[in-house]
Amino acid sequence: MSIGKVVTTENNEISKDGAFVRQTNRFDTPFGNEPGLLPVEAGRYRLIWAAICPWAHRQMIAIKLLGLEDVISVGKVSPIRTPHGWEFSLDPNGVDPVLGIRYLPELYAKTDPEYNGRATVPTVVDVKTGKVVNNDYFRLTNYWETVFKPFHKAGAPDLYPEHLRTEIDKLNDVIFHEVNNGVYKAGFARSQPAYEHAYHLVFNQLDKLEQRLSKSRYLFGDNITDSDIRLYVTLARFDVAYYAAFNTNRNRIIDYPNLWGYARDLYQIPAFGNTTDFEAIKKGYFLSNNAHNPYDILPLGPDVSNWQTPHNRDKQFS
Amino acid sequence: MSIGKVVTTENNEISKDGAFVRQTNRFDTPFGNEPGLLPVEAGRYRLIWAAICPWAHRQMIAIKLLGLEDVISVGKVSPIRTPHGWEFSLDPNGVDPVLGIRYLPELYAKTDPEYNGRATVPTVVDVKTGKVVNNDYFRLTNYWETVFKPFHKAGAPDLYPEHLRTEIDKLNDVIFHEVNNGVYKAGFARSQPAYEHAYHLVFNQLDKLEQRLSKSRYLFGDNITDSDIRLYVTLARFDVAYYAAFNTNRNRIIDYPNLWGYARDLYQIPAFGNTTDFEAIKKGYFLSNNAHNPYDILPLGPDVSNWQTPHNRDKQFS
Repeated sequence: MSIGKVVTTENNEISKDGAFVRQTNRFDTPFGNEPGLLPVEAGRYRLIWAAICPWAHRQMIAIKLLGLEDVISVGKVSPIRTPHGWEFSLDPNGVDPVLGIRYLPELYAKTDPEYNGRATVPTVVDVKTGKVVNNDYFRLTNYWETVFKPFHKAGAPDLYPEHLRTEIDKLNDVIFHEVNNGVYKAGFARSQPAYEHAYHLVFNQLDKLEQRLSKSRYLFGDNITDSDIRLYVTLARFDVAYYAAFNTNRNRIIDYPNLWGYARDLYQIPAFGNTTDFEAIKKGYFLSNNAHNPYDILPLGPDVSNWQTPHNRDKQFS
Repeated sequence: MSIGKVVTTENNEISKDGAFVRQTNRFDTPFGNEPGLLPVEAGRYRLIWAAICPWAHRQMIAIKLLGLEDVISVGKVSPIRTPHGWEFSLDPNGVDPVLGIRYLPELYAKTDPEYNGRATVPTVVDVKTGKVVNNDYFRLTNYWETVFKPFHKAGAPDLYPEHLRTEIDKLNDVIFHEVNNGVYKAGFARSQPAYEHAYHLVFNQLDKLEQRLSKSRYLFGDNITDSDIRLYVTLARFDVAYYAAFNTNRNRIIDYPNLWGYARDLYQIPAFGNTTDFEAIKKGYFLSNNAHNPYDILPLGPDVSNWQTPHNRDKQFS
């Protein structure tokens, strides 16, 4: 059984100056109702995610907020990436019950035998053909929020309102480069200057977001938007993983009054909290094959019971 | 030039169940005025220390508190332990000006060619013979505090008062096993159970000490004792190094109101603060040859400027 080429960040995606440069997406055809796009249909797609992965986690948050659970089927790989790539070891017999595969790279090899990048989560598979159709981690939530609107549950929030899209896109870009991927640039840096550059990017931006969130409950006022989902997934991983594993240790999120209140405000919404698995996040970052943890010690801390404490942001901004 | 056997914790000091078991001391003849003991003389001994090392750091604190700087000469190795052991790379030409050696194991080899343990700091050398006479990291401060009393400065504190010695010894034993060496047992564990055992040892004891320090300014009331020096050196390394490098991450010292006030209270005394080099501590734990840090990234955080903030423990216990 071929599992495709095995590629991890250990082997490429590093520039000459030691900086981490994330690979581009191979499968980025948009979803939509015009010819040539991926048809918008219920029951046609399967989303593969991992609880460790911030890019995959945000798909699950959006799907649950929008009530798309019966429209998009979901498969889950283990948070601990193996030398063979993401593995369906959480399933009976270690095989995804719909796709019948053990390792995600099998799917990529089947879809494109020439592909030589990493097989990533989130991956969207067309169940009809069994092939990967989209792994565009940056834009994927926007498809669930827009073209999949006919399938939203009644009363679903508008996470990507038309009048705010330019502003949301602008902020999402900053959040991507300086926060979501900023921590990876710090953690995967192979030179001190590349690490320090990323460290300052991250904390300068967190300082700005701390200020912004002193003035409004969410990033764009009183309603949750796509940008909040994007910021949340990094905040939820910060103190339990990035602080130690990626050396982003100027301070923790719980040291920022507004970011910490905001993070708990979101966590206490079921679509956020129920998809946030701190143990899986720790396993993913500390036990994966590229974690430089020769004896596979899983840190017991930090205490995460404080995520349940009152945040009072509803009163603060009422 | 022989530099003696090179031994690090990577190669031994690990039990069958993956636990770290610190080597015993090779050179433990006491100092004293009876025959067979190491004679108490000014100008005869040279103490070798490293700013990273908690066992060595406490010698420097005691020496400065007691005013023994002109009685015991001092040499300093780099905080980054090399594959060849501790190195005098901070000195001109990388050689200790008194002992004329580059690596500490040279001294041990000269003293005892049969010795096959690690060459450790603190090491006390008899300058007359150029040989190691004592590396008893556990008892060494007590010699400076007692038999070296004739050389103490006027008004030096009594760090080991006779009426408290039994209690101090008892507490020192607990601090050693559960705090000073407790963090090493967590950090050097090679199995999850050995790590978890050490993690709980450390935090259960820190919780008790937090309680104790809610009732008195120092561990034994209003005066600093030997036990305070022993506890301090681990507290000063905790948030900057052990929390991330040794996985002792239930919480940081700054999360404990009493331990954090107490640590700052001591830090703001010159003998403590002037010998505490946070950068050297970070370099030692993150860049040494056994740090599992393949690209030698030195974390920029955490912020240590808060060690200078008011502690108010003088008012609290006045």
